[in-house]
Amino acid sequence: MAATLKVIPLGGMGEIGKNLTVLEYGNDIVVIDCGLTFPDEEMLGIDLVIPDMTYLEKNAERLRGFLITHGHEDHIGALPFALKKFNVPVYGTRLTIGLIKHKLEENDVKEAELISVSPGDTIRLGCFSVEFIKTSHSIAGAVALAINTPVGTIIHTGDFKVDYTPIDGEPIDIARIAGYGSKGVLLLMSDSTNVERPGTTQSEREIGKTFEHYFDMAKGRVIVSSFASNIYRIQQIADVAVSFGRIICFQGRSMLNIAKMARDMGYLNIPDEKIVDVEKLKFYDDDKVCVITTGSQGEPMSGLYRMANSTHKLNIGKGDMVIISATAIPGNEKGVARVINQLFQKGAMVVYDSMADVHVSGHACREELRLMFTITKPKYFIPVHGEYRHLYQHARLAEEMGVKPENIFVAETGNVIEFTKKDAKINGTVQSGSIMVDGLGIGDIGNAVLRDRRLLSQDGLFAVIIALEKHTGKLLAEPEILSRGFVYVRDSDELMNEAVELIREQAHKFENSQKSEWASHKNNIKSTLKTYLYNKTKRTPMILPIIVEV
Amino acid sequence: MAATLKVIPLGGMGEIGKNLTVLEYGNDIVVIDCGLTFPDEEMLGIDLVIPDMTYLEKNAERLRGFLITHGHEDHIGALPFALKKFNVPVYGTRLTIGLIKHKLEENDVKEAELISVSPGDTIRLGCFSVEFIKTSHSIAGAVALAINTPVGTIIHTGDFKVDYTPIDGEPIDIARIAGYGSKGVLLLMSDSTNVERPGTTQSEREIGKTFEHYFDMAKGRVIVSSFASNIYRIQQIADVAVSFGRIICFQGRSMLNIAKMARDMGYLNIPDEKIVDVEKLKFYDDDKVCVITTGSQGEPMSGLYRMANSTHKLNIGKGDMVIISATAIPGNEKGVARVINQLFQKGAMVVYDSMADVHVSGHACREELRLMFTITKPKYFIPVHGEYRHLYQHARLAEEMGVKPENIFVAETGNVIEFTKKDAKINGTVQSGSIMVDGLGIGDIGNAVLRDRRLLSQDGLFAVIIALEKHTGKLLAEPEILSRGFVYVRDSDELMNEAVELIREQAHKFENSQKSEWASHKNNIKSTLKTYLYNKTKRTPMILPIIVEV
Repeated sequence: MAATLKVIPLGGMGEIGKNLTVLEYGNDIVVIDCGLTFPDEEMLGIDLVIPDMTYLEKNAERLRGFLITHGHEDHIGALPFALKKFNVPVYGTRLTIGLIKHKLEENDVKEAELISVSPGDTIRLGCFSVEFIKTSHSIAGAVALAINTPVGTIIHTGDFKVDYTPIDGEPIDIARIAGYGSKGVLLLMSDSTNVERPGTTQSEREIGKTFEHYFDMAKGRVIVSSFASNIYRIQQIADVAVSFGRIICFQGRSMLNIAKMARDMGYLNIPDEKIVDVEKLKFYDDDKVCVITTGSQGEPMSGLYRMANSTHKLNIGKGDMVIISATAIPGNEKGVARVINQLFQKGAMVVYDSMADVHVSGHACREELRLMFTITKPKYFIPVHGEYRHLYQHARLAEEMGVKPENIFVAETGNVIEFTKKDAKINGTVQSGSIMVDGLGIGDIGNAVLRDRRLLSQDGLFAVIIALEKHTGKLLAEPEILSRGFVYVRDSDELMNEAVELIREQAHKFENSQKSEWASHKNNIKSTLKTYLYNKTKRTPMILPIIVEV
Repeated sequence: MAATLKVIPLGGMGEIGKNLTVLEYGNDIVVIDCGLTFPDEEMLGIDLVIPDMTYLEKNAERLRGFLITHGHEDHIGALPFALKKFNVPVYGTRLTIGLIKHKLEENDVKEAELISVSPGDTIRLGCFSVEFIKTSHSIAGAVALAINTPVGTIIHTGDFKVDYTPIDGEPIDIARIAGYGSKGVLLLMSDSTNVERPGTTQSEREIGKTFEHYFDMAKGRVIVSSFASNIYRIQQIADVAVSFGRIICFQGRSMLNIAKMARDMGYLNIPDEKIVDVEKLKFYDDDKVCVITTGSQGEPMSGLYRMANSTHKLNIGKGDMVIISATAIPGNEKGVARVINQLFQKGAMVVYDSMADVHVSGHACREELRLMFTITKPKYFIPVHGEYRHLYQHARLAEEMGVKPENIFVAETGNVIEFTKKDAKINGTVQSGSIMVDGLGIGDIGNAVLRDRRLLSQDGLFAVIIALEKHTGKLLAEPEILSRGFVYVRDSDELMNEAVELIREQAHKFENSQKSEWASHKNNIKSTLKTYLYNKTKRTPMILPIIVEV
């Protein structure tokens, strides 16, 4: 029996984040991307979320390498965790590899085999040969992948848009992708993020005009906030700043790091003499200064956030112009609005997305997605990188574009999609899911711990300490109460006194009972207190009766 | 000395929510609106937020009444709290008063004097006379106020839009407002919510076309979710449903309540025989059913949420069409997206704002705001109902429209803006702020309690119980540890054992010390544990050392 080609998404299906797709044929496995996602608001205290890689661990001896489409967190963020387990090469373009290297250093991962490739390069991994193809995205160095397998060719777009006038002068290599299309593409896997948007995404270059317009208006300092990884954006800001005779100062940890790396690698071109340290800014007139900073998402501790909150040496005020060159990622809307309000209140002029064209997306809209179908003419289609609604809409678009409905797979994370030369089907699932990372703990936090955090976050804690004589159950001291996050204790004497009284009544039952009954006494204390506190306050703190036997 | 007119916003400035504005002249005070706001994500466990009304309490004997512009929560939500303190009449149009009545009943407030007025009515309250003027908004019964004061006329728009083709057939009374304008308006206070949007807000009637289009396509049940208070929207949905031969079933507590009230009052016109209970739906074919439900914001426990999560008797599935006739309020984006994804996954066809014109705003955009300046020609202007950025942009718009910059007041909550016939200025502030309501507690939760909840929510709790002999400090039992929300205890034996060991070492110091030193021993235990736990886990739970003296 001939082997089948298996495509197994371990992340990125039904979510925008933690992309990881396994390709498998016979003795060979390659992985496309290895990303993380940020915790949603229910995951209290969690730092980040990575894909469950158990399936890869079980098949580690067949794993030939990681193929990385670009350097965003949702494509590289889980690599430090993966590379502690798998000793295989990682392939990406130069900037992508630079960002991965930096990330591995931060996470204390040594001795990874990181291999830089250029668009147009083809590598061989087991039975797979992989060509990296230039695309456009909101980070430099993004590529699509053409993966030749024994069953046929897969085109994986990575995150992409079609930009005919990109900042680096190298548009998406339509000819190369179309070349595969004319030879026959078995499977297209294409970015679904913007499938709900009609038309086409604007060229990155369009924003340059906005910068020119506002720099021309500005009479004092100009502070621009953007994603540090959007090198093209940074280049445009820097070019406009320099053309207006302004010096550039980078602020924010990731902005400083990435700007340095991108300049060293030649992705970002700014003359040395046009860049100054923040300490030197005082030697320049305000109208000769441009600060490029992190914080476009309103993140606490970011450059812009600290400037807005007067905890940064650059104290923004009257005469300053702040351009927030981004839109809020879902979930960040309120934080961004807060920063905008604070900046206005400090007297700055703020330019932001409701009022000006300060941002374009990095993802293809519907017409660009149609172009991708047109040039690849795939037999099969799997929409990737999207919540379920995006995958669903992308599947409908594929139908419109002529892909047979039965050849479209709206997959879930963990699904095994099997391809032979004859047909394809979803054939079972493998272990998959979200692994929560909290501090040094990887996957140790489960629902019970999160439930406790949620409960504690709502109405706090009400602990009762009862000291009993070990053998008699006699109450050895006044019951003590310790509450946190429940009520303001100093104003709650009456409540606390009555609660102590209730506990004492219950606690005397220990004395007149068998030790076997103590657990039920403890539960009684808990439920009595729960009812009492709820009636008095309409709050439900976590109640913890603590019995100390002496 | 002649008395001055004072305008004192106690809410609604620098925020969208909890609107409350005090007008004061000589011995008379009237209040415009009395709303609440919902807690932001930092206010863990808080139910709602109301304005600090201390200033009104101190001046209660001068308070003549509340003027309510419409029945949304941010305009009426704090009335149950206010009317427990102030025994004064409340004026509003019929639906507004109906909604207030319902709210007061729910909050156990009896004997309030609620007075229904009609647009065109004028009432007298002390030295103020107030005319209620018809406007359009996303709730029926919305009015602007023309308030004649000894110093001049104030026009307060309430929340408004300019709808020339409203569902109730009665457009905003431009002639009446313009009449005041030609006689001379001292002060305009105008809704700033949509000042960032160019052009005009679409008429509510436009959405009717969308409903017709999708009802025409639907082959099974149609489930429409919207705000319960948007009677116009409900009317349109019902009209289209009836025209397609569908029966109507209301779902969700507030939808059922408000639909009943609005029908009783004649605001909502649906024949009795076109409405059925959910239990009777089984007698109708799917293509004869229209469900109108709450849940357009993805609220947990709302009708649509439960349908999407299979915890509602209406189990949505293949063949159903769900129309979400709303946009997500900032902060709700993720919740709404989750519901949409779940509905798609259950096989329903979902129609939502990214893909169709299913919603229009209830607030005026820039051209409508310009119209308001044109017809009122105010001497002074105070932008209201907005975050700082909205107030700022509205102030700029006022300048453009010819209001003198020195006559525009971008005020903060608590500011006292004084007007005489000659001039106006901001003259000091009064006590104001946000009062957090948590269960039965009004204002008892402060920063300390919130800080504890936040800390507990992040890494949980680590309590240490140490029993000591009262006089000798001798350790009477093995130290005990109780943790919640920190680590999964069953997998953390080693961590717990090492922690007990550390505690024991420290606890022995009690034995060899004066009682006066015990507090410092306790602190040592805390800091030792903090360091130990952080090094082992990179987490910082709340550490609570509990000393039990026996």
